This record gives sequence, C-alpha cells and structure tokens, in this order.
Amino acid sequence: MTLSAAVVAVGNELLLGDTVNTNAAWLGGALAAVGVEVVSSVMVADDLPRMVVALQRGLDDADIVLVTGGLGPTSDDITREAVAAVAGVELVRDERIVQQLTERFAAYNYPMPPDVLQQADVPVGATALDNPVGSAPGLRLPVGEQVVYALPGPPHELQAVIGVVLDELRARTGRVLHTRSVHVSGIGEPTVAERVEQAVQVPPGVALAYLAGGGVVRVRFTGTDDDVVRRLADQVADVLGDAVWGRDGAQLDQVVHRELAARGATVAVAESLTGGLLGAALSRMPGSSATFRGSLVVYATDLKETLAGVPGPLLDALGAVSAETAGALAAGARERLGATYGVGVTGVAGPSEQEGKPVGTVHLAVSGPGGADIRSVRVPGDRDRVRLIAVNSALALLWKHLAAERVAP
Amino acid sequence: MTLSAAVVAVGNELLLGDTVNTNAAWLGGALAAVGVEVVSSVMVADDLPRMVVALQRGLDDADIVLVTGGLGPTSDDITREAVAAVAGVELVRDERIVQQLTERFAAYNYPMPPDVLQQADVPVGATALDNPVGSAPGLRLPVGEQVVYALPGPPHELQAVIGVVLDELRARTGRVLHTRSVHVSGIGEPTVAERVEQAVQVPPGVALAYLAGGGVVRVRFTGTDDDVVRRLADQVADVLGDAVWGRDGAQLDQVVHRELAARGATVAVAESLTGGLLGAALSRMPGSSATFRGSLVVYATDLKETLAGVPGPLLDALGAVSAETAGALAAGARERLGATYGVGVTGVAGPSEQEGKPVGTVHLAVSGPGGADIRSVRVPGDRDRVRLIAVNSALALLWKHLAAERVAP
Repeated sequence: MTLSAAVVAVGNELLLGDTVNTNAAWLGGALAAVGVEVVSSVMVADDLPRMVVALQRGLDDADIVLVTGGLGPTSDDITREAVAAVAGVELVRDERIVQQLTERFAAYNYPMPPDVLQQADVPVGATALDNPVGSAPGLRLPVGEQVVYALPGPPHELQAVIGVVLDELRARTGRVLHTRSVHVSGIGEPTVAERVEQAVQVPPGVALAYLAGGGVVRVRFTGTDDDVVRRLADQVADVLGDAVWGRDGAQLDQVVHRELAARGATVAVAESLTGGLLGAALSRMPGSSATFRGSLVVYATDLKETLAGVPGPLLDALGAVSAETAGALAAGARERLGATYGVGVTGVAGPSEQEGKPVGTVHLAVSGPGGADIRSVRVPGDRDRVRLIAVNSALALLWKHLAAERVAP
Repeated sequence: MTLSAAVVAVGNELLLGDTVNTNAAWLGGALAAVGVEVVSSVMVADDLPRMVVALQRGLDDADIVLVTGGLGPTSDDITREAVAAVAGVELVRDERIVQQLTERFAAYNYPMPPDVLQQADVPVGATALDNPVGSAPGLRLPVGEQVVYALPGPPHELQAVIGVVLDELRARTGRVLHTRSVHVSGIGEPTVAERVEQAVQVPPGVALAYLAGGGVVRVRFTGTDDDVVRRLADQVADVLGDAVWGRDGAQLDQVVHRELAARGATVAVAESLTGGLLGAALSRMPGSSATFRGSLVVYATDLKETLAGVPGPLLDALGAVSAETAGALAAGARERLGATYGVGVTGVAGPSEQEGKPVGTVHLAVSGPGGADIRSVRVPGDRDRVRLIAVNSALALLWKHLAAERVAP
C-alpha cells in the first residue's frame, strides 16, 4: 500500500528566514524511499493555535503527520502541547524519561535546570522515541486510525531518532522504493537527457529524474523493483560511457580518493582561480592524507613561475590563462610536491575578463607517469559557480585520467 | 499597520527532497524587513486540487498570499490555473506578454516553442509583474480585500521580480523594520549573550537575536525605530570590544580584503588541515588579486619543511600540530610568497587524533611587519565544521592583527 504524509516544521526562525528548512528536503527523500508520499510540508511559528491548525490540516491531508522541532527545554518549545491538543488528550509526566534526563545530566556532571523536565511530559497514549544524541526524545501518538510523530528539529537529532519510524513505515507500506543513479561530468543536462531517452524505455511505475548542479549531472531511476531500476541504470551507464564517474551514493572527491588509494598513488595541485578549493576537495575525505600531498595556490601570476615552475616565456607569450599554463602547472605540482599525479587549474572566475579572456574560461590539466590530459571549458555563471564547476571539472578530468590508465596501463 | 502573509512554494522537487526550499527563508527575511509577518509557509506538489487547497488556506491565514514556482512553460507549470481557480476567474491571453515573449526569443535568435505562450495567460483581473531575467512574468491578483502574488521559482528570478511587490507592501504597512547587527569571533554564543544582556536593556518592540555558526556569532536587533536599534548595536559593539570585526551586512573575508586593500597590503597563507579553504576564502571577493598572493597547502608533513620553511628540528620536536609550527608556517608563507602578512594554520580535523593531539585542536598564527600573533583553540564538531571554524578563526585573527596595528601603528 501507499501511505501519504504531511510534514510540519515548527520554529519562528524558519518563518523569519534565519534558518533554511533543510529537514523538509531530507525527510522528503527519506520518506519516498520507504514508499511514503509527502503531500504537504509546512512551516509554522512557535504559536500554539497556529500549530494546532497546522497539525489538524496535516491530519486532513495525509495518513501520517511528522512534526519537527519544538521539543526542547525552553518555554517556546510547545510541540508536546500542540500534539496533545490536536489529539484531545492531556500531558502526563513519563518517569522513564525523567530518569533518562537525570542520568544524562549526571553523566555530563552538569546540574539539570528544572525546565528540562518538561521534555518528560508526553501526551496520554504516546510512546517516547529514544534520542541517542540529544536530550529531547521523539514521540509517537496514534490519533484514531492515523499517527502523529514528533521529532527533534536539529538535523543530526532528527536523523538519529527517525530510524525506528522509517522501519515502521516500511513495514506498513511493504513498498520499498529503490533508487539507482548514474553520475556524469563533462556533458550538459540536455545532451545527457537526449542520449538517455534515445537509449532506454522507462516502464510505468519507474520515475526518471535529472539532477544537475556544479558541473555534475545525475540520472536517477526510482521504482519498486530493484532489478528493473538497476537494469535501467546499467543501460544508461553504457550509453554515457566514459562520462560516467560514479553510481548511486558516490561523490566525485570520494571516487578520486578511493581510486588513488587503491593504487597507492598520490596527487598534488597547482591552482589559480579556484584559490584552494581544489585542494580543499581533495582533502575533504577522512584519510585523505594517504592520497593528497598538497596544493600550490598560485593566485599571483609571478608565483606561477617562481613556485609552480611555469616557464616565464610561456607566461609572457600566452598569459596566465591558457591551456599550456594549466599543463605546466600540473607538471610543476607533480614534480615540486613529489606526487604521482599533478593537477593544474587556471582560468577567469570573474566578475571581469582577464588578459582579454572572457569570464568562465577554465583550463584544466592532469599530469601523470603515463602522460598528460588537458581540457578547456567555458563555464556559465557567477564567480562562485565558475569556481565550483572548475573544481568538479578538475576532479572529473583526474578521475578520467585514472580510469583510462586502468583500462590500458 | 501590520500585514500578515502566507507563502506557498510549488514544486514536486521540494516534496521529494531534490531541492531545498531556500526561497522560503529568503522571502521570510525580505517580508519581515517591510513589516510583513509570514504566518505560514507551505510546500505543495504540482497538482491542481492540492494547490487550490494550499492557496485557499493561505487566504484563510493571512492578508496576502505569495506563491513561488509553477509559472514556467511546461505542462506541469499550473500556478496560473490554480490562482485563477481560487479567485473564481478565467484565464485570458495577455497580448502585451505575448509581444514581450516573442521579442525575447527573437533577441536570442531562437525559435519560440508554442508552449511558451501559456506564460501569457493571466487570470482575469491580474496584473503582470515584469521579469527582467527570465521569460515567466509574475502576477498580482486582488481577491476581495486580499491580494495573491505569483512569483517565479528560480531564486534569481524571484528576487528580480519581487521589488515592486515589496515597494507596494512597504507603502501599505508604513512600517519599515530596521535591522542592525554586530559580528564577533573568538567568544562563544553563551558568553556573548551574557555580556550583551548585562549591558543593554532591550525596549519593547525591539527583537534581539543571536545567530551563531562557523565560529562567528551575530548579535541582531530589529525594530521600527532605526535610531533605537543603531544605539543598541553601538552599545553592544562597545561591550564586546575587540572581538567585534564587523557590523550589519559585513562578511569576515570581505572586511579582511578591504582592510588589506585600504593599506595596499597583501597576504599569503600556509595551511594544513584546512586543505586550501583559507586560500579560497581570501580569494572569494572580486578584486582579491590585489590583496591575496597565494597559499601553500602543505598537507603532507614533509612539505611543511620543504615548501613552507618550517624548521625540521621544530617538526621533529613538536610535531606538525603545534603553535610553534603555525608560527613558522605564517612566517614561511610571508617570506616565500612575498606578502605583507603571512597566515599559518595547522591542526587536527579528524575523524581521529593525530600525534596524540585531539580532534578539533587548531593552531593559528599571523606574521606581519610589526610582529606575530599566535592563537590556539579547541573546536567542537565534525571534520567539515572543524575546517570551517579554523578558516573563520584565522580570518578573525588576521583582522584583529590588522586592527591592532591601525590603533597603534
């Protein structure tokens, strides 16, 4: 069966714009994966009458209601009261939660403020949901044939508490949705879509989506039959060929790190317009000290020569922004930082052109024991976007270089 | 007078979790600034009956309703139909919009797909709102005493179209809200709050908020009387003294860049755990090539010696993670990259300890013509958070160093 859900996020800070409601998107994805369709998702202030209206509307809209936030120890945390009101029951103090809170504060050797105990008040008929990473337990309250779940607002607490709720929902729907994705770089979304739609026939009940951002396009199939969605993803991976750098949960920096680690190799960078962002990406993964040596951020043109070893005559003839300069940066990084592979990035982040080269010009190079790859692209967007796409394009080029070596060593 | 608003964001991608609804937060802030209180903010699928329910609830809740999204040229863009339905009117083709769309496509020398013309259909009685950056115009439709505004979903289009709406609302409320903020670094939110609350008496009608993140705390006053909120902010700035690095819209990387540019000075970095993020921050501002020379990302320990000039015996005796190493990195960056100021950062990002030093240990140093500053901190959180706070702490230390020189040159 299919279940529908209404999500209610509580907090003045969401309506005032001080906090972006990232929980809503996270919950949407997590619920879809267990066959639950979110039909409405609302933000409401810390105000009892408004919260009761929002919860009642949720019960009108959907089979289950998930409330996030308002479970803390302060006076504006009134989700417990609102849930009790909409169910028409009283709050009662739960001695087991009192005990847990007391032990939690004792373990931290910290005196427990009396207000904390309001977190032990639960609507009559509700079950507490353990919170291993915070003091606010979640709540599960049946309301007639429906169920209201109250969950903590901080994202890491929400994600720690919700496991038992997702298990319960998965058991009810019996409809686990399977998602299979194929990630590509180096070709745009329209081209990806055209090739995918020529190659595969999407059967009824399977959803196809294209998610594009930062120079990466993800092709995603969602359906109840894992064999079917996996086969579709396999077909797409075949069709998109060497533009594909990963599947499913993979991240570009992660696949590069793993590929380097698997062959005991290291990488070093010389980067200009990205200002250090490529080094930051190559050091984001835990354990990256095994694969990442360092980066020369040669923002000033003279440093490209003195630090990274780009020949002065080359800079004089072609400028700091050229494919040849990118190649020399990659070779310089590899040699001077003693790495198996070197990556060079130069270009024009904007807002204005440089050396007569337009904003968005990006030159990328990879240098390795088997030779070099150079790629030049023209990237749309503002300064932040140009820098982000330059980083992802450099990671993709490095990945492609490594993959090609694996095929033909 | 005060006006209340209901916000309705349209799009399956919001409920499925593929897109985070950042428009809601942005609108919350923009509306608060013109004296409009958002009382509900909801996300709804591209589904006509559900959209009509959401719009009707918005009209039940508030004086005005703002809808975002669903104004595009494809078949699932049905906000025009939903707005017409809730107002009980028909759609009619607006020849002025037809003309604009035709000209827009002609200007790009691109054939106009016939579906684009649905963007020229408007509910009877509605006024089109010009969209200078996209093809979908906004709509303004009075419904009895209330008004429904339909605005495009892409954030840059929303922000380009809404100006005329905000002007209209500001004129109606006559209640411009003024916001004044004081930004500090180096002290935690509880300490900031304690000092602020000892020093100032917040009058009725003024809201005080603390916004903390990434090692920065912002103290914000909001009220209708700009003199009052400015005076409160001045008092807070006095009380927090040299922890204050900026006011109002200022960003830490921006104030550092401006301070360096004002004195014709440059900065260079040698960074380890931040992997290039400090260089990225110092090169984020347009025009940063005037103040940022570059960064040595010396992730591997041996590079700290060979590239950044940290003495080998120092590394042997104290390790890569020490205050002395940070000092030597700052001095090395300054000298080897030929900058007025050098900044050094080393520490343990995690997930596991290093050289027996715990995760979150961060040592920072600034070296300049007048001497050096060194600071050691212990930062809570995961790898990403430790790196982010290390970057902001380094920027704050550099700013403080520059400010101290200005006072006593």
